[in-house]
Amino acid sequence: MKPVISRAMLERIPIYIDYLEKISSQSHEYISATALSKAIGFGEVQVRKDLGIISGEGKPKVGYKTDELLYSLKKFLVTDSCSNAVIVGAGKLGLALLDYAGFEEFGVHIKAAFDINPGIMSQTNKPVLPMDKLNEYCLNNNVKMGIITVPASAAQRVCDILLDAGIKAIWNFAPANLCVPDNICIENEKLAISLCLLDMKQKQTETQYSQEDI
Amino acid sequence: MKPVISRAMLERIPIYIDYLEKISSQSHEYISATALSKAIGFGEVQVRKDLGIISGEGKPKVGYKTDELLYSLKKFLVTDSCSNAVIVGAGKLGLALLDYAGFEEFGVHIKAAFDINPGIMSQTNKPVLPMDKLNEYCLNNNVKMGIITVPASAAQRVCDILLDAGIKAIWNFAPANLCVPDNICIENEKLAISLCLLDMKQKQTETQYSQEDI
Repeated sequence: MKPVISRAMLERIPIYIDYLEKISSQSHEYISATALSKAIGFGEVQVRKDLGIISGEGKPKVGYKTDELLYSLKKFLVTDSCSNAVIVGAGKLGLALLDYAGFEEFGVHIKAAFDINPGIMSQTNKPVLPMDKLNEYCLNNNVKMGIITVPASAAQRVCDILLDAGIKAIWNFAPANLCVPDNICIENEKLAISLCLLDMKQKQTETQYSQEDI
Repeated sequence: MKPVISRAMLERIPIYIDYLEKISSQSHEYISATALSKAIGFGEVQVRKDLGIISGEGKPKVGYKTDELLYSLKKFLVTDSCSNAVIVGAGKLGLALLDYAGFEEFGVHIKAAFDINPGIMSQTNKPVLPMDKLNEYCLNNNVKMGIITVPASAAQRVCDILLDAGIKAIWNFAPANLCVPDNICIENEKLAISLCLLDMKQKQTETQYSQEDI
């Protein structure tokens, strides 16, 4: 059984993974908690504690083997039991997620998509079903996660339908703030913010490099 | 001119926005730096400093008006000048991003998509062009950002083509670690990790609520 960790720590794990993947491709064999904390700007005590929980103590002086640490972090993110998910909204994004193979390795199975528009075909063998089958499908297939890829104007209505069908976690791609009860988990995927963050970083890097030129 | 801030701080802004959006829909009129730091698990000194840079001092005792703080944070993320971007890979995800309207408000214009497969149509009036036009298009349209939505096996090749065309920032959706020079910014979009994080949170919430039942 995994230790119960805080949400904040859970949020830090992908940031560690992201950085370690970057440096592992640049042949950094070892990384210390100190170096990692400096690189990503989290407090050293916090980083040391997180890594200790997930991967045990590092080697004195050198720290952790980068590849091994990366493996432990990724393994930690995979929950012990599998989860079933459905998508509502079989537009381009919904179908892209339905066909995307990368979720299975994390123990999440996207089983089907639902849409008000009948006759949409998926390129995989996963079904695209009409909305009036959603409730029954979720109950019969032990589906606990719902992925919303409908326009913002329909998102709250879809969210309510999912909750009625027993969904406990919502991954929302619609640019809308959804109201859900406290016992429901929600993750808003903000693609626009990722893009804008990249844009800012690029402009800062440009400034930094042009200052170094001087 | 905006203050030059650290990358780490830049990464924290979307986390503040995410939390404030959640509570602003639950009618929390004010939020203090203390409450915000507790809720998201960052150090209070850090949160206070970040908010001070972005939104000035809060009101004594109550802190910041939630909506105003949210507005300042979002405004901060919008760079002063616009950026042009192109997508390589006009599959479902690429076309979904090409058609997505939410990027414009952050000052990023996705101008066109490129694909080895000619004859793909976009639903907007943005063009899908053949790969051999990419270099010329980027140079003529001052494109500095490239979005990669091709399969992992083609991602590094596409990345190299983008860098040759003068691209300075890469938003990579392919599940591949790309090698880029130090002066190039890269953001790896890890959709699988978001989903898995949500799955873990849901399982923790479930445990927590079932313990409270006892």
